Amino acid sequence: MSRRGRGLRVAVVGATGVVGQEFFRVLAQRAFPVAGLKALASERSAGGSVRWDGRSLPVEALDERALAGVDLALFSAGADVSRTFAPLAVEAGALVVDNSSAWRMNDDVPLVVPEVNAEDIARSEGIIANPNCSTIPLTIVLDALRREAGLERVLVATYQSASGAGRDLVLELEEQIRAVAAGRRPEASVYPHVLAHNVVPGGWPPARDGYNEEEMKIVNETRKILHAPRLRVGATCVRVPVPVAHSEAVLVETERALEPEAARELLGRTPGVVVLDGPGPDDYPTPAAVAGTDEVYVGRIRRDLSSDRGLLMWIVSDNLRKGAALNAVQVAERAVEMGVL
Amino acid sequence: MSRRGRGLRVAVVGATGVVGQEFFRVLAQRAFPVAGLKALASERSAGGSVRWDGRSLPVEALDERALAGVDLALFSAGADVSRTFAPLAVEAGALVVDNSSAWRMNDDVPLVVPEVNAEDIARSEGIIANPNCSTIPLTIVLDALRREAGLERVLVATYQSASGAGRDLVLELEEQIRAVAAGRRPEASVYPHVLAHNVVPGGWPPARDGYNEEEMKIVNETRKILHAPRLRVGATCVRVPVPVAHSEAVLVETERALEPEAARELLGRTPGVVVLDGPGPDDYPTPAAVAGTDEVYVGRIRRDLSSDRGLLMWIVSDNLRKGAALNAVQVAERAVEMGVL
Repeated sequence: MSRRGRGLRVAVVGATGVVGQEFFRVLAQRAFPVAGLKALASERSAGGSVRWDGRSLPVEALDERALAGVDLALFSAGADVSRTFAPLAVEAGALVVDNSSAWRMNDDVPLVVPEVNAEDIARSEGIIANPNCSTIPLTIVLDALRREAGLERVLVATYQSASGAGRDLVLELEEQIRAVAAGRRPEASVYPHVLAHNVVPGGWPPARDGYNEEEMKIVNETRKILHAPRLRVGATCVRVPVPVAHSEAVLVETERALEPEAARELLGRTPGVVVLDGPGPDDYPTPAAVAGTDEVYVGRIRRDLSSDRGLLMWIVSDNLRKGAALNAVQVAERAVEMGVL
Repeated sequence: MSRRGRGLRVAVVGATGVVGQEFFRVLAQRAFPVAGLKALASERSAGGSVRWDGRSLPVEALDERALAGVDLALFSAGADVSRTFAPLAVEAGALVVDNSSAWRMNDDVPLVVPEVNAEDIARSEGIIANPNCSTIPLTIVLDALRREAGLERVLVATYQSASGAGRDLVLELEEQIRAVAAGRRPEASVYPHVLAHNVVPGGWPPARDGYNEEEMKIVNETRKILHAPRLRVGATCVRVPVPVAHSEAVLVETERALEPEAARELLGRTPGVVVLDGPGPDDYPTPAAVAGTDEVYVGRIRRDLSSDRGLLMWIVSDNLRKGAALNAVQVAERAVEMGVL
């Protein structure tokens, strides 16, 4: 009998983080079949409580014992925690959906966006990785365009919100905004540069050849999710003073010509995508409007004037929801449907 | 005898605007040979005063009479004012350097970035156009790369500050920041969307095929300044909640391969350019750091992973200075040197 019959015992690891909190909201909003719910976090955060579905849940310290009897473990507590505890959760019998980068590029671990490659869930040996928050919305759009016209090249410039770096940067931005409003000089401690009244093309750890880790995640994860290991992908990642929702200015060069109107039409019927592109000149998605929603919004779809088969577009998505918690819960839902969970 | 001998009678048209105010600072800082200085503005702004070199200048209403006897008229009062009054200033004997878009694409009007095409000043019949604030820094970088490796294609995503839209948006952003800091809901009236805690891929008048006027300025002005009418240029323009300085994430595809290190080296010896690109992972320019400076800053120079001969880079420049007032005054300085003024 599927474990779903009696509901699932779920653990959220990293329960007090910005994505952790979003997990509780998403589980409640989607009426996920929860038989029991544990909020796990570091020793430091244990002892407090989190809200779930109108109730208060105590936050317990994460250790091996806390994972016993768990069917589904949703991890978002950083790569180090996932490297140590995800295998222990699997040993204890759980399916892990891991929002960290720890397992994403492991050949034995599926990296899944349900709208794109749900079939990879079947390959899971216990851990399924949730992709980077900028990569998820991008691959949904790319996959839809690819089915119609093939894909040759992708170039992305991002406008990423503070919450992508976690609660500390959200709080630091809030404090900086108060400083600016009061005529004081804003100060940075979490991030290498002040974010208020600024944009910062970095703050992620360096990777190689001048790229940072965030940019290489977009390159490598996009290839893996699309099963297109040689797809040409370039990226520039920039942090902007926005609390929630990531935006991306994207060039897509297709193998076969695709008119903007045709792209608009096919994206409009792609599950999980909302096209917001006119008729008025200022009808396009912005992160302030998209924050808190579930869909991937696409606007400003037009011909790239610098190439023959290029389209330019503007993609916005809530990085805590579709970019993280929502996608992970959708992966779990599909795993249940597929009998993997 | 050159008019410079006795100094020049200068008029700033649009004296109370954000660029107008910058004109006065730049003229003083560069010790421009001013024999007399007039601050001109609309009827509405006349009667007030502006600061210049420690003195207070009365603001006079702009009319034909006010332009009599002026040698150099620096215009930044919008395209309509320039269309009406720039020809009158020329008739009255002045050289006009016009910061509006009114004359930029006119075949008889040079569009000049002194570092790139100062020689075009000699073609002037009285009006010289100052390019768009995003285009000026871009063309300085492109010209340097072109001399070494040729140019095939350019793609730009911008992060443009509020001051590019004028004082009203700067004030609106300030008020929105105060609202956010106080927990109130920010409101938009000048711009089509709230800018605080947001990024807005629009707000410029629509051009055609889904492009707005700002994007088409980058495309068309870049081609004109570089004398490269068929250069492939694409652009996405985005407004960000930054008061001053525009940033651009840029792809440059060259005709011949150019290593990032070679690009860094050649940009490092390009007049008007500062390379800020390491050695630390967070050594790159940001608008907060660049605001108030004269140079074009370039960082994050690296190979584009999506093309064979592409370089990605990050360009930041003060849109009120090198993007507007400083470039215009530099044009006037070169005009003096060339005997045009």
